[in-house]
Amino acid sequence: MDSFSGYFNTHKERFIEEWKEFLSFASISADPAYHHHCLACADWVSAHLKGLGFHSEVWPSDTKPLVYGVMPGDPARPTVLFYGHYDVQPVDPLELWESPPFEPELRDGRMYARGAQDNKGQVFFVLKAIECLKACGVSLPTIKVIIEGEEECESEALASNLHLWREALQADVLMVCDTGMIDHGMPTITMGLRGVVALEVRVFGPSIDLHSGIFGGVVLNPLHALSTIVAGMFNDDGSIAIPGFYDGVVEPTPLDIERATSAPLMVDEMRASLGVPFAGGERALHPSVRRGLRPTIEVNGIGGGYQGVGGKTVIPSYGAAKLSSRTVVGQNPAHVLECMKRYVRNTCPVGAHVEFIDEGVGGKAFKLSADTPVVHAAERAIREEFHRDPLYIWEGATVPIIPELAATSGAEPILVGFGLATDHIHSPNESFSLRQLEDGFRYAAAFLATI
Amino acid sequence: MDSFSGYFNTHKERFIEEWKEFLSFASISADPAYHHHCLACADWVSAHLKGLGFHSEVWPSDTKPLVYGVMPGDPARPTVLFYGHYDVQPVDPLELWESPPFEPELRDGRMYARGAQDNKGQVFFVLKAIECLKACGVSLPTIKVIIEGEEECESEALASNLHLWREALQADVLMVCDTGMIDHGMPTITMGLRGVVALEVRVFGPSIDLHSGIFGGVVLNPLHALSTIVAGMFNDDGSIAIPGFYDGVVEPTPLDIERATSAPLMVDEMRASLGVPFAGGERALHPSVRRGLRPTIEVNGIGGGYQGVGGKTVIPSYGAAKLSSRTVVGQNPAHVLECMKRYVRNTCPVGAHVEFIDEGVGGKAFKLSADTPVVHAAERAIREEFHRDPLYIWEGATVPIIPELAATSGAEPILVGFGLATDHIHSPNESFSLRQLEDGFRYAAAFLATI
Repeated sequence: MDSFSGYFNTHKERFIEEWKEFLSFASISADPAYHHHCLACADWVSAHLKGLGFHSEVWPSDTKPLVYGVMPGDPARPTVLFYGHYDVQPVDPLELWESPPFEPELRDGRMYARGAQDNKGQVFFVLKAIECLKACGVSLPTIKVIIEGEEECESEALASNLHLWREALQADVLMVCDTGMIDHGMPTITMGLRGVVALEVRVFGPSIDLHSGIFGGVVLNPLHALSTIVAGMFNDDGSIAIPGFYDGVVEPTPLDIERATSAPLMVDEMRASLGVPFAGGERALHPSVRRGLRPTIEVNGIGGGYQGVGGKTVIPSYGAAKLSSRTVVGQNPAHVLECMKRYVRNTCPVGAHVEFIDEGVGGKAFKLSADTPVVHAAERAIREEFHRDPLYIWEGATVPIIPELAATSGAEPILVGFGLATDHIHSPNESFSLRQLEDGFRYAAAFLATI
Repeated sequence: MDSFSGYFNTHKERFIEEWKEFLSFASISADPAYHHHCLACADWVSAHLKGLGFHSEVWPSDTKPLVYGVMPGDPARPTVLFYGHYDVQPVDPLELWESPPFEPELRDGRMYARGAQDNKGQVFFVLKAIECLKACGVSLPTIKVIIEGEEECESEALASNLHLWREALQADVLMVCDTGMIDHGMPTITMGLRGVVALEVRVFGPSIDLHSGIFGGVVLNPLHALSTIVAGMFNDDGSIAIPGFYDGVVEPTPLDIERATSAPLMVDEMRASLGVPFAGGERALHPSVRRGLRPTIEVNGIGGGYQGVGGKTVIPSYGAAKLSSRTVVGQNPAHVLECMKRYVRNTCPVGAHVEFIDEGVGGKAFKLSADTPVVHAAERAIREEFHRDPLYIWEGATVPIIPELAATSGAEPILVGFGLATDHIHSPNESFSLRQLEDGFRYAAAFLATI
């Protein structure tokens, strides 16, 4: 067999044309006006899978259809379930696009289109890697593919029907290419994602807004109470002061910390672009540890009383804060939520009372162990193909469907993606370079060959 | 001379007709559409003063005219400057009025009209008391009258021209009847008003809202900073924690405290109507002391980040709190403002920065001493006419023009008003009972006779 790069370059022109076909579907899941584009895109994916030798079906749902495929392989090897999504983000503001978002255009080695990276580009290089391995006669494990159409809007069809598809989705490895890498030529294994818990706290005081002169110093101000509740959630060192919040937190291993802190995080560049230092959270820890391996609470919004122009001297009747917590492995999200609520109830002073709304567990955390066969397979693939050690990151964000899919399928996730901040996903002029596409292709081929 | 009550009852029917004339002017100062009603009302007041024997002029201004009058009296006695206002609050919601607000109607012994109490009713009983004293041949001091037309909208013409009118306003006693009493038949001396200082604090963090997963635990959340700043302004006992805030505060005397706490404040009734206990401010002190004799800080409004329906997991770029402080005598309002700003600057954590807007000193505090001739004169008038000791309250609210007028005129204020919560000033169906009118008339006559 030629090198994977050789195959890629030999077939590059065809790859570009097929990729453009995939990108030309306006498969925006959030907007019902684009529903028929989603249906057509699912059909295209399914047809493409069949072309690669998969048995494939389009699974209808009440919302967007899912594309499923299976191609039996060596039963002695771990079954791989590849997860991706064909839906894309809306395109507004349209006027900022330099070329129409669904008329893919290759400029200076980058493909510009909505979905060029997220996630059509990263799905496409995996499909092409499978094509390559088959064409070259490389032995393959059994490969299953599930490509959903609602990743950008909470994976409704997949999440709500997982139990029905448990059998079809059974696998050993859950391969995902929907993340980023540290920089060009630095393939990166995403070793974990945080979970998320949400809670809105409403603090009520007097039945109506009161005159702050007549009642000031007599009636408790609910915005004072709300501020005290929020401020009291944090210790001076930036850690969380809520009793029980850290219960069960799995401390990062020395190896995790060493890996997280040694990967260049473009810290200085990020700092400069944000205009602020990295002064949040547990300041004694490295930023990469804080954002990936430690739980947080953020105030997403706060409001109450008079917020218009000028002043109004009232004691408001009411205030509210929207809170969310990013959880890590070992925390029980329901317990985190309960601790937050208990803390708020216990902290709310006499003269005010609290109510909770919009509470919920939005997604679980997961974290890979350093020493597992699937991580070793990804490391092996990267070393063989790129002649360097992989980098490791722990992401602070949450992708709820991955731990759910892992739990249902029984498969261990492995997240290696080739996105970069410069791809501008979710923004105008999204793009993905041919170099990123080729690197992803080389990784996917090497991983599927080695697993 | 007959008793004051005797005179009142003899002339009651005419008083009612004159009072109705005064109330029928729609002298709403806030709405330019009613400007000509304000002009007509000022003319009426001036003509009425002339009818009582005053030299009177209508002083034009860029906004609403003022009515001035002077009636020379015994030069050996203190000159009295009576301050009141002919303007009234808007009347909306009009549909809730049981009779039209500018068609005064006497029902069950109460006059229903906008301004029936605030302040036309209380101005009217003073004018009628002067009439009575003159008719009965009682010796009078020199009496000056200033009736403005913008009390309900910041006294612009009066406040901005005080220096021009210094000579005309020179007096020894500033008589004001624009306050309330504890209950029917319980004449009450308002011994003080608080001042007010305002400040909006804006806390800025990252240049744009950030993803709370990617940046949570790394970038400081400005709403966390804002909550910490606000919460830190208060000690656990409800007192203010800002260094320097209490500088110069004149501690209430034991007599002030004894008087403030012995007046029935309808505390239980107020508690019940508000639905909350009196749990704000310095809880160790009596509510009447807290609201009248101690300074406070209130959060009038707070806002930042996402406040819409549901959740949005962002670290907001910005948050703001509108603050106001009620000051007491001895505090320098400019110093209070500076202490608040210094505290905020010193408390704002690394990773955020603060800006201030809408800062200002809205009105000074004043407080009467228990042992002054003017207070003794009011006490004497009340004891003689009502055969009981006066009650004393220290109001928490602010009337900026009174300390300014006192300073310019050189007169010592004496505030005795006959309003009750049931008069519904500023609300639909404002009213003032004939009993309150008569009690005010009796007090004003006795006070002017004795001063």
